[in-house]
Amino acid sequence: MVPHLITALTGPINELEARVLDSMPAIERWFRLEWMEHTPPFYTSVDLRNAGFKLAPVDTNLFPGGFNNLTPEMLPLAVQAAMAAIEKICPEAKNLLLVPGAQVHNTFYLSNLQQLVRVFTQAGLNVRLGTLDESIKAPRPVALPDGSELVLEPLLRSRGRLGLKDFDPCTILLNNNLSAGVPRALQHLHEQYLLPPLHAGWSVRRKSRHCQSYEEVAKKFAKLLGMDPWLIHPITGPGGEVDLASGAGLDALQGHVDALLAKVRRKYKEYGINEKPFAVVKADSGTHGFAPLIVRDAKDLADPARRGRNHGQGEAATGPLALIVQEGVPTYERVNDAVAEPVVYMIDRYVVGGFYRIHAERGIDENLEAPGASYVPLAFAESHHLPRRGDKPGVSAPNRFYMYGVIGRLAMLAASYELEATDPDAEVYD
Amino acid sequence: MVPHLITALTGPINELEARVLDSMPAIERWFRLEWMEHTPPFYTSVDLRNAGFKLAPVDTNLFPGGFNNLTPEMLPLAVQAAMAAIEKICPEAKNLLLVPGAQVHNTFYLSNLQQLVRVFTQAGLNVRLGTLDESIKAPRPVALPDGSELVLEPLLRSRGRLGLKDFDPCTILLNNNLSAGVPRALQHLHEQYLLPPLHAGWSVRRKSRHCQSYEEVAKKFAKLLGMDPWLIHPITGPGGEVDLASGAGLDALQGHVDALLAKVRRKYKEYGINEKPFAVVKADSGTHGFAPLIVRDAKDLADPARRGRNHGQGEAATGPLALIVQEGVPTYERVNDAVAEPVVYMIDRYVVGGFYRIHAERGIDENLEAPGASYVPLAFAESHHLPRRGDKPGVSAPNRFYMYGVIGRLAMLAASYELEATDPDAEVYD
Repeated sequence: MVPHLITALTGPINELEARVLDSMPAIERWFRLEWMEHTPPFYTSVDLRNAGFKLAPVDTNLFPGGFNNLTPEMLPLAVQAAMAAIEKICPEAKNLLLVPGAQVHNTFYLSNLQQLVRVFTQAGLNVRLGTLDESIKAPRPVALPDGSELVLEPLLRSRGRLGLKDFDPCTILLNNNLSAGVPRALQHLHEQYLLPPLHAGWSVRRKSRHCQSYEEVAKKFAKLLGMDPWLIHPITGPGGEVDLASGAGLDALQGHVDALLAKVRRKYKEYGINEKPFAVVKADSGTHGFAPLIVRDAKDLADPARRGRNHGQGEAATGPLALIVQEGVPTYERVNDAVAEPVVYMIDRYVVGGFYRIHAERGIDENLEAPGASYVPLAFAESHHLPRRGDKPGVSAPNRFYMYGVIGRLAMLAASYELEATDPDAEVYD
Repeated sequence: MVPHLITALTGPINELEARVLDSMPAIERWFRLEWMEHTPPFYTSVDLRNAGFKLAPVDTNLFPGGFNNLTPEMLPLAVQAAMAAIEKICPEAKNLLLVPGAQVHNTFYLSNLQQLVRVFTQAGLNVRLGTLDESIKAPRPVALPDGSELVLEPLLRSRGRLGLKDFDPCTILLNNNLSAGVPRALQHLHEQYLLPPLHAGWSVRRKSRHCQSYEEVAKKFAKLLGMDPWLIHPITGPGGEVDLASGAGLDALQGHVDALLAKVRRKYKEYGINEKPFAVVKADSGTHGFAPLIVRDAKDLADPARRGRNHGQGEAATGPLALIVQEGVPTYERVNDAVAEPVVYMIDRYVVGGFYRIHAERGIDENLEAPGASYVPLAFAESHHLPRRGDKPGVSAPNRFYMYGVIGRLAMLAASYELEATDPDAEVYD
């Protein structure tokens, strides 16, 4: 059962919601026209932050986990979207090789894999799992929480193709974000469809590039709706190259943060928002052991103790690191007093579901995607597909979810622009 | 709530169900390849009859009503399928003109229209209703059971286009089966998409042509699964031209019925079915006031009293009528002791839901699509999209519904073949 999202439905985001609802046919048509020109990523999840006065995507994941958090009611939509995606990419497909991430010791992640296997099997493919873990030399069954099991198999690489023993797939689907770089097994596969493409890998993507694309998308969309793009877009700028150990580049970073906070303050003033803005400093590429840093005042950056609060997962950063500075978007959605941020899931161009990521022990300005005992995924209660036009803004869960689906798709479209711009195999016409 | 379909899950159709489940990826791939070559009808509903020993489509409707009988859980699938359909046909579409059937005094039909308006609005179109009823000269609101209303507007025909006042649609969707022929307002519309095409009209289609296409499809499919096509195909043959008033052609019809019943008896013997086969005599085109006639013995046709039991809806047949003779498929599904037949709904190539048509007062060999106080639509309890491979045949509702969805899609594919073959604008390469 899903508790009622009282506060999620009473925030001051209602004007945006009303505008999005009123413009629904125009919005859907706009997306249709965009998808005529651009190819959606194969699958995408987008983290949103709803500040009440604005709603913005803060993370666009092209190798989404967490499909296990979608409800059984959402699953048919995922299957249907997967059918549409396969039909477009490779209608003659028989076999799909799914390459999982490294988190296969995490039962939540295993449930995610199980869900993906289910979706693509039911879309009509033979699905098997091939692991990049070279220590696995023979098929290895892994137990699932529900008592069933998945089998991880060693990859077999031939000259031009990747497969498994007695399994030659036409399509390889990565659920591994390639944060450690592109392994050899995946390089130079020109005979098979590799989805997402290698340049979508976490170690290759630049957040600055994505944000640039998102800004472009947000401006187009805002023009369509006759509104200020800032309402759906977090201001983002460069942070320069910083060596956290030596402090080189910190002065410049402070300047970047100051400039960004000044812009945000102007916007807050324009909208009469009586809050203190904050910025988030992130590594431009991957994480490099650098967890996003919340900065309320550029001076804080001079204090190593405050910087020291930053302890990323994985190895620590060494040497100069390219950073970006982004307007922080607080999240004012609550489920039972816990801070919640919506996450939207898409397959091909279709929103297939979503949930709230809830973290009782985190603040409204903190990153909720972190380990924590109180992390609770909460599936959206009703379908984003069934907005109720005419309902008062802010009182209808489907209308709220529809709006989330729209903003999620904007971020997905930005990822599409981004992947086109960064495609190493793209033909360039000068 | 949906009662549990005990008997629907314990019939002897289980072997077919197991075979369909086992072949799921091959079946989905086969459909994908078929849809590369053929265009699915815009929307379709298919009536099935489950005899336990065979499962066959008995009516393929290209102007489906009854969308109101789909559950709210099924609606998102319909919206997503509608989005896919629009994107393919006319991505730049803004306005959709929906042309209803003549049954607008029936509240069930109005609820169907309301559901269609909802689906296509939520897929991102401005939807308005334009009526073929020439007595309607100004927008006429009609009340819906839920207290809301729909507005029927008079059509405005210009030289090349059809629309409403201040409403110029790029696509016209007919929910009117054109059983009275093609009205002038719909003729020669070459600038707009008219869906389904005029040659899908009920007065133009020939059941014999559809059955021929279905036979072709069923044979292909049966070959894929290595099974006898008869298990999913009702034997069908010509009935000749008969003048019911004068009796001319009756002898020949008796001969056709005899021949068909002999074929069915051989099949029954082959499969050890200890039942008396029956035939159904139908008008080849439309109904012409000729309701399907159940014939257990060709001699019955000589008896005007028995023939006289036939009283179709609408005007009675006059003059010679082209008839077809089809193997009768009894329906052995029951919901609370009432005879039930499954109806599958599709938009574009996607199954979006289904329900049982239940008629407590009708027999297992009778046509259930008839007025009756005990007519109850009963939505499928779970999604056809989520079959559970590994479950024992006959115990899983999703598996049963998946099988229905497959057979429904076979009939839809046959309609696609049929429409291609009968397209008056088709280019012919000799």
